[in-house]
Amino acid sequence: MKILVSNDDGIDSKGIAVLKEALEEIAEVTVVAPRTEQSAVGHGITMQIPLRVQEYYKNGNFFGYSVDGTPADCIKMGIRNIMKESPDLVISGINNGSNTAINIIYSGTVSAAREAAIMDVPAIAVSVTSHKPKHFEYAAKVAKMLARKVREHKMPVGTMLNVNVPDAAEEEIKGILITKQGKSKWDDTYERRVDPYGRAYYWLIGEMVEVDKDLDVDQVAIKKNFVSVTPIHFDLTDYDTFKEMKNWDIEKVFNEKAE
Amino acid sequence: MKILVSNDDGIDSKGIAVLKEALEEIAEVTVVAPRTEQSAVGHGITMQIPLRVQEYYKNGNFFGYSVDGTPADCIKMGIRNIMKESPDLVISGINNGSNTAINIIYSGTVSAAREAAIMDVPAIAVSVTSHKPKHFEYAAKVAKMLARKVREHKMPVGTMLNVNVPDAAEEEIKGILITKQGKSKWDDTYERRVDPYGRAYYWLIGEMVEVDKDLDVDQVAIKKNFVSVTPIHFDLTDYDTFKEMKNWDIEKVFNEKAE
Repeated sequence: MKILVSNDDGIDSKGIAVLKEALEEIAEVTVVAPRTEQSAVGHGITMQIPLRVQEYYKNGNFFGYSVDGTPADCIKMGIRNIMKESPDLVISGINNGSNTAINIIYSGTVSAAREAAIMDVPAIAVSVTSHKPKHFEYAAKVAKMLARKVREHKMPVGTMLNVNVPDAAEEEIKGILITKQGKSKWDDTYERRVDPYGRAYYWLIGEMVEVDKDLDVDQVAIKKNFVSVTPIHFDLTDYDTFKEMKNWDIEKVFNEKAE
Repeated sequence: MKILVSNDDGIDSKGIAVLKEALEEIAEVTVVAPRTEQSAVGHGITMQIPLRVQEYYKNGNFFGYSVDGTPADCIKMGIRNIMKESPDLVISGINNGSNTAINIIYSGTVSAAREAAIMDVPAIAVSVTSHKPKHFEYAAKVAKMLARKVREHKMPVGTMLNVNVPDAAEEEIKGILITKQGKSKWDDTYERRVDPYGRAYYWLIGEMVEVDKDLDVDQVAIKKNFVSVTPIHFDLTDYDTFKEMKNWDIEKVFNEKAE
């Protein structure tokens, strides 16, 4: 099995090193990751400027390729230009901090996996639910287990798994649940500060407003110390509203002859 | 009615000026837009560095506020810090180039509207289907019509409208259709070049692979010269796969006692 590994915390983060080492037990691993931290970049891709690619060495050994772009750029570059043949699987992570509920939208980690899904490669995003995780090992073990499951069961083209693992030792984890994306979101604002030259600048600050209740929702599962596994796709159509809007009386064909 | 207007082509683009002028006939308009072009930034938000905000003047007249961040940053900043009360509606655009099918994922224009939807403010993204549009006027007219329709009918919290208008004079447009997000996507790669110092750099290049057939799909509607109106939301859960995965045998509760 050939696995492409990326992340959004940057190629020198601990999480990607732990993930690479674990996956090398079951696969041939290629790492293509952002040179610098790219958290919250969403699904950005770089088109206005060209990308640079460099070989990255860790403790004197070749580790992978760094790209001065976004996580989605890394996946495109890895699949199209760096790997000789398309990987069997892409795994993004292990991320510092949970990617549940609304955070999925902003997440570079999830976007890397989603870019793979767009390119018809099965993908998994893996996050540990703490910004300074102490426990990457169990998350790496879950990634390996799911890599095998994804190969065994196949996923529909365009679907990926978003996995969140509590930052706890294995014996403290309660179990594994298949979940839905939560509806909890940030209540945020900007804190105004003034620089030494008298000019204002603004930092984003906020807190998560927890509205999810059911255990089969990502945000609740992780709070209860379960591993959360959410299948997500990139069809954003709101089908209920699509039907509802038929009553809005905006659909018209007003020019039969136009080309 | 109070409308917050933003875009991803930057505050000095023609599309946002045409949109502002048209909406001022029906609403009090506040513009908060990126200082520079932010196409394909996806749903990125700025957290690693603080934001700056400046008043922007056009032909000597106050036009709006420029933010040196992403379209999503502009919406957060506009709603939370710049406007005294939350707007009734957010409109993002008018974008140079279509935002249909897979492009919705990468689009800064759509992400601005989606950020508003996340903040419980109804929102519309408007694009013209050419990178050098000749016809913004009809798109602005459609935006006004839909602004009224959204107020009249309400949308579910979290849903927004993604609108694509053919770059054509009004009399050449065939009609307006409610559509679904298409599945057409880019087949892309990187073109390698070498700089004057002998170092490689890579430009993203590619072409859209058209797989959509039905007229009620965004990508097909615009090709046939219809205005496409797609309701989209930010629940990315793949519910079919959620059910299917119950057969994967990965769900377990293996530690009843854990906290």
